[in-house]
Amino acid sequence: SKKPLSKKKLSYSNRGMSLEEDLNQTNEYYRLHNQAIIHKKPIPIQVVNVNYPRRSAAKITEAYYRKASTTDYNGVYRGYYIDFEAKETRNKTSFPLKNFHDHQLEHMKKCVEHGGICFVIIRFSVLLRVFLLEYSDLAVLWEKQFEADGKKSIPLKTIEKLAYELDYTIAPRLPYLTVVDQIIDRMSHDYS
Amino acid sequence: SKKPLSKKKLSYSNRGMSLEEDLNQTNEYYRLHNQAIIHKKPIPIQVVNVNYPRRSAAKITEAYYRKASTTDYNGVYRGYYIDFEAKETRNKTSFPLKNFHDHQLEHMKKCVEHGGICFVIIRFSVLLRVFLLEYSDLAVLWEKQFEADGKKSIPLKTIEKLAYELDYTIAPRLPYLTVVDQIIDRMSHDYS
Ligand SMILES: [Mg+2]
Ligand SMILES: [Mg+2]
Repeated sequence: SKKPLSKKKLSYSNRGMSLEEDLNQTNEYYRLHNQAIIHKKPIPIQVVNVNYPRRSAAKITEAYYRKASTTDYNGVYRGYYIDFEAKETRNKTSFPLKNFHDHQLEHMKKCVEHGGICFVIIRFSVLLRVFLLEYSDLAVLWEKQFEADGKKSIPLKTIEKLAYELDYTIAPRLPYLTVVDQIIDRMSHDYS
Repeated sequence: SKKPLSKKKLSYSNRGMSLEEDLNQTNEYYRLHNQAIIHKKPIPIQVVNVNYPRRSAAKITEAYYRKASTTDYNGVYRGYYIDFEAKETRNKTSFPLKNFHDHQLEHMKKCVEHGGICFVIIRFSVLLRVFLLEYSDLAVLWEKQFEADGKKSIPLKTIEKLAYELDYTIAPRLPYLTVVDQIIDRMSHDYS
């Protein structure tokens, strides 16, 4: 990884927690400490039928999951628009690109063009290793898959080289803003 | 209003369209023309029961609406984090503050602290007049309601004075970024 963060592996196991829970707790920590305002977007659901029982809450009785048109998380940090997707795999040696979708890549591309900071946070759940991969690096790997003999997954070795590894800490669980600080340091500040 | 936009009232009626539809079309226009990447967040829904019928999509059979913890829309424009809430009223002389919630005001306050641009877009549906009111102005009116004899609604006259009026145009329907440009012009560019 470009710059490994200090090793502070948790002594207790967090194998029971999903990456989403890790990130929700992390974002809550960042909000409570007023470091960043970043939220998970709700899952898009198409509501077809709703009952309105007397004296109680409206009950949705028929609905379907819709495809997300964007990414999982967005918000603001140090004046920057932050936008990222989180995905995990049980694979141990590579990360399958099919975890991402065309429209998510397209969304991140557009956000970067407008001055946003976009990345994916990927977890190898069995290895319990988490990486932050910038959109610009993901985009190159994504395009390569469509070439002759293009790889449909990213080898762990490539991820170790291109991405930033995130170590679990007590609080926040996954301190990814430390990496975002490094990304900001490399950016120009004027997009207007 | 601070600076009325050029008058280009639509000749056809748009009374059938909700403010949300107006803004969704506007944001789609902005995305297609690559001017800004701003989306409506999905409505948060708590899923309680899901059926998985063979050979067809998962069907949610019990779910409830949850209270939104943030605002309706967010995204990125000219490198800035944009975050806003949209509300409409059928009142003709004032806008009831009860349309907004504590946690939405709190969310906008935090986002502004981190360099975001926050506002509300309010529509008087019967008058068919739409205004963009910056968070900073709304916050003052919001706090005043808790004082002795505090007003629970914002008189239209006050809105005309403090807010920017948005005129409907053919495309985009509600060109609110023109106002955001003016807000950016007044801001400092360095939040780091
Ligand atoms: Mg995800
Ligand atoms: Mg609304």
